[in-house]
Amino acid sequence: MSESKYKPFSRKAYYYETDGMGIVHHSNYIRWMEEARIYWLEYIGYPYSKVEQSGLMIPVLSAECEYKHPIRFDELFEIHTMLKDFNGVRFSVEYRITNLTADKLSAVGKTSHCFVNRDFRPIRTKRDFPELYDVFNDNLNVEF
Amino acid sequence: MSESKYKPFSRKAYYYETDGMGIVHHSNYIRWMEEARIYWLEYIGYPYSKVEQSGLMIPVLSAECEYKHPIRFDELFEIHTMLKDFNGVRFSVEYRITNLTADKLSAVGKTSHCFVNRDFRPIRTKRDFPELYDVFNDNLNVEF
Amino acid sequence: MSESKYKPFSRKAYYYETDGMGIVHHSNYIRWMEEARIYWLEYIGYPYSKVEQSGLMIPVLSAECEYKHPIRFDELFEIHTMLKDFNGVRFSVEYRITNLTADKLSAVGKTSHCFVNRDFRPIRTKRDFPELYDVFNDNLNVEF
Amino acid sequence: MSESKYKPFSRKAYYYETDGMGIVHHSNYIRWMEEARIYWLEYIGYPYSKVEQSGLMIPVLSAECEYKHPIRFDELFEIHTMLKDFNGVRFSVEYRITNLTADKLSAVGKTSHCFVNRDFRPIRTKRDFPELYDVFNDNLNVEF
Repeated sequence: MSESKYKPFSRKAYYYETDGMGIVHHSNYIRWMEEARIYWLEYIGYPYSKVEQSGLMIPVLSAECEYKHPIRFDELFEIHTMLKDFNGVRFSVEYRITNLTADKLSAVGKTSHCFVNRDFRPIRTKRDFPELYDVFNDNLNVEF
Repeated sequence: MSESKYKPFSRKAYYYETDGMGIVHHSNYIRWMEEARIYWLEYIGYPYSKVEQSGLMIPVLSAECEYKHPIRFDELFEIHTMLKDFNGVRFSVEYRITNLTADKLSAVGKTSHCFVNRDFRPIRTKRDFPELYDVFNDNLNVEF
Repeated sequence: MSESKYKPFSRKAYYYETDGMGIVHHSNYIRWMEEARIYWLEYIGYPYSKVEQSGLMIPVLSAECEYKHPIRFDELFEIHTMLKDFNGVRFSVEYRITNLTADKLSAVGKTSHCFVNRDFRPIRTKRDFPELYDVFNDNLNVEF
Repeated sequence: MSESKYKPFSRKAYYYETDGMGIVHHSNYIRWMEEARIYWLEYIGYPYSKVEQSGLMIPVLSAECEYKHPIRFDELFEIHTMLKDFNGVRFSVEYRITNLTADKLSAVGKTSHCFVNRDFRPIRTKRDFPELYDVFNDNLNVEF
């Protein structure tokens, strides 16, 4: 990763993402991880649109998030991602969400995924999508 | 409509539907209208699952909502619907959302729709889906 | 728990909860767990509205979900919940989401929480809210 | 408005915003209008955070949207806004949402609002918040 070039995924929290406690509802962090994941896929050179053009989908097998410090409306956050445990079919992504406005670590999370075709059958990328396989291997354990 | 049988769509507001003002976010009313519309389709005998099995979709051409009284977490609301302006291809649905907990009219809304096939091409139901056409005509201007 | 009386939380998946894969977006399961949790709180006799009237809030400290079988639009699901690890300040809830339409276990999940006041300060329920403390202890490790 | 400086609100559609038809769910356009409105408030010099610091809220009195061309996952859209009908207490905002990826006008919409205090009582900005009043008047009927 060229440090000089990469900017981690970042945006402000929307008003409609807040809840009655005046903070961003916890379910939205799961959505933000998806935003960060798609941003990262594009950055490493295999955007999700290309995944779909390949006839693939990347459903979520598991998701988890530990909430440490709330994020409020209009606060700026940043998400760092790291690909973990890629075996050609499955992989995980770890996330670190920082509240830049409050200068606090806001949450850490993890999702795991599987490459499937449109019938939700698992696909071995090494054989069928070697370019995708290589891109993922090149970025394994690299922090973005 | 058999008055004795029909129960209007009704449920409580979820916590995650509230926003930082402590009231249900206005965008959710648009979603509630969809819930009520699908409930109504099932009641009149042409559930959305059957619409989809027919190879049809019902995208939204327009949506509008006038907000009169807020709904808060856990408050019970009810939605009355009425089919309007069905011409075989297009139709509208009008909604009246009542906050039963506060005993207030909460919102009135309207959506307009079109029957399309999976390529988003408009479909004349009179010719191609006469049963659907008849069900809609039978329920035109009937309040549910 | 009176087996004859209790009905687990259950509803159909809404159209707006589906995503481009034609299945319910994974983030909505996190929201469903909240729905089930609030339903359960009401059943055990300490509804969230009473929690709020007590000046308390129950933010989420962590959430996780393992996805096993997708849920599609209009499919009926049911959520069983069980309170775990209550220590007077913190607690966890475990969830089992079943797709009743497909007759498959759809997901298992877990959330952990903390009782706080409106300033997000942790509250010891044993001292300050003994009724709440007792209700939680009575329902610890009971499957609903 | 300095043409050289102003950039209309713009972003890509998120995956979780799509629905089973493979297009962005119509309810999200209502949320996008909020994003654009808040972006515009910041640009004209009275950000929503300042509104809240003044003890004010801006609930939505009505919202409407006409959908002309769908937006799909990852497509880039842009929203132009224009303040209309400001009378010191109420105002409207009109929106034009363009799908930049497809180079099509995607939707036009309108929301109307009211300035209220935290008890949801209407507030006359001319008397109580003259700076806000002036900022709004200066930007009335100006396209952003």
